[in-house]
Amino acid sequence: MREFDLLSRIYASNAHLTERVAVPPGDDLAMVRLDGRNLLAGVDQLVAGRHVRLETTPLELVGRKAVTRSLSDIAAMAGRPVATLAAAVLPPNFREERAMELFEAMRVTAASYRCPLIGGDIAMHADDAHPLTLSVTVLAEPVGDRPITRSGAVAGDGLYVTGSLGGAVEPDGGGLHLTFEPRIDEAIELAEALGDRLHAMIDLSDGLGRDASHIAESSNVTIEIEAERIPCAAGVDWRSAMSGGEDYELLFAASGDVPATLGDGVPVRSIGRIVPRASAGGPLVRVSRGGSTFDGAELGWQHEGRE
Amino acid sequence: MREFDLLSRIYASNAHLTERVAVPPGDDLAMVRLDGRNLLAGVDQLVAGRHVRLETTPLELVGRKAVTRSLSDIAAMAGRPVATLAAAVLPPNFREERAMELFEAMRVTAASYRCPLIGGDIAMHADDAHPLTLSVTVLAEPVGDRPITRSGAVAGDGLYVTGSLGGAVEPDGGGLHLTFEPRIDEAIELAEALGDRLHAMIDLSDGLGRDASHIAESSNVTIEIEAERIPCAAGVDWRSAMSGGEDYELLFAASGDVPATLGDGVPVRSIGRIVPRASAGGPLVRVSRGGSTFDGAELGWQHEGRE
Repeated sequence: MREFDLLSRIYASNAHLTERVAVPPGDDLAMVRLDGRNLLAGVDQLVAGRHVRLETTPLELVGRKAVTRSLSDIAAMAGRPVATLAAAVLPPNFREERAMELFEAMRVTAASYRCPLIGGDIAMHADDAHPLTLSVTVLAEPVGDRPITRSGAVAGDGLYVTGSLGGAVEPDGGGLHLTFEPRIDEAIELAEALGDRLHAMIDLSDGLGRDASHIAESSNVTIEIEAERIPCAAGVDWRSAMSGGEDYELLFAASGDVPATLGDGVPVRSIGRIVPRASAGGPLVRVSRGGSTFDGAELGWQHEGRE
Repeated sequence: MREFDLLSRIYASNAHLTERVAVPPGDDLAMVRLDGRNLLAGVDQLVAGRHVRLETTPLELVGRKAVTRSLSDIAAMAGRPVATLAAAVLPPNFREERAMELFEAMRVTAASYRCPLIGGDIAMHADDAHPLTLSVTVLAEPVGDRPITRSGAVAGDGLYVTGSLGGAVEPDGGGLHLTFEPRIDEAIELAEALGDRLHAMIDLSDGLGRDASHIAESSNVTIEIEAERIPCAAGVDWRSAMSGGEDYELLFAASGDVPATLGDGVPVRSIGRIVPRASAGGPLVRVSRGGSTFDGAELGWQHEGRE
């Protein structure tokens, strides 16, 4: 089952959303209007055995990642954090002390990004063999009351990425995917610096290739990436950097100049450009290396493969 | 593990919430301030094998209940619905058609209560034996910008309940707990009719006895209930009506007169009163019947028993 397709089909039947819904489902977060205020909201989940290995991952990092995954969606929309809600389904033999440790990690993580944990729910599984699942909802406000969506990229824009890519999930299940910093402050700084020149943005969870294809599809453009310019993490080749996923860096399309660094020295690299989509069936993401070109949309995680 | 205790302990360490949090965690919904607007938010979960039996319950009713449980929390605070977010963890053998049916039921239910589904997430379990879990977040705005919490009841108030109580969960797993109507419109009508005289409210999920104790504890009062006045469902005695749970009716404390009916003829019954708490260790809920009195707080579901 492809999550993206399924949610798209569901939301397509949601056409007559009330006039309150300013950004419909399908982006990193949705946006509703509240008498002139705009509110961003989204939910993400963490399932033991799927997104983290409980056997080898400290609970503190499990709770941290459950929250930072959702916070990264705030960064993707250049939102200012407002509040977090967290819900857990625990196996019956999950001890109260461990539940406390888990929620405390979520509370501390949420607070450290100015997105306080204001609500929660705890339910129990029927069987000890059923896995811990966490769902984290985040609320935010767009900078300048305008969210940065996936759909605003236009031909002529440059394509940029923060940080370095690849190797976030190590073979033993550890790695940066557990300890990354959501680029919330960097995204706000970028949105304030660029204003209307910041056209589209996404956070890299599925991998550069696939996430670039989300922008290309939503914006109805083609994205060209030069493989040599991808900032690969140490020891990672460009293909792995494009397909690895869980980098939680920002990928954005903008016109004009962009800062060389954001925040505390996070590098911003130009890796390509936005061009018109040649035809309806044309490629979403074209990667060039030497004289060869590759279909970049296939270089990334499909949600059915790993979520 | 007692959910209530655990969440209380976690939230107690949340003392320095930002000034944005107007109603802290622990009520039916939390409330955050957004530059003058107030927003209510809460999350609830539904676990297959715990809250519903997938074997005997149509998927449409599973999705419906996942949403109405959370909508009932909006009613409890006298909120106006704003938006819904839904997340699901599915067993890998849960077919796409069934996932569509489930989300479509959540979408239709949310829309029918003017609380459109604006976001979602679907994740997969690692094993077919792991159960479907749903988490539903709801956003709302308080009527007159003032939420009705659990903590405002004062000695001298009358105690009232809507509808009839008991028998909501039938022995085969069916019953009104799957098809109840969240009392959203009735709660708004009540809040508008009573204004400042509506002091405290909760929706009956754990059972009258235990939910009354939540108001008593939050308000630092004792609640007296006359067993003979409890509106029992047909064939249900007062003890079962107090302990059954999942009625999703409104229980509220108010001064002065209250309407005899709300909405489309939903009856409102006076069942008791609020009195001062005699001592710190005094009973939260005292039920009188004939010449006898009972500890009402024990008549209801503890979350560890059934959630």
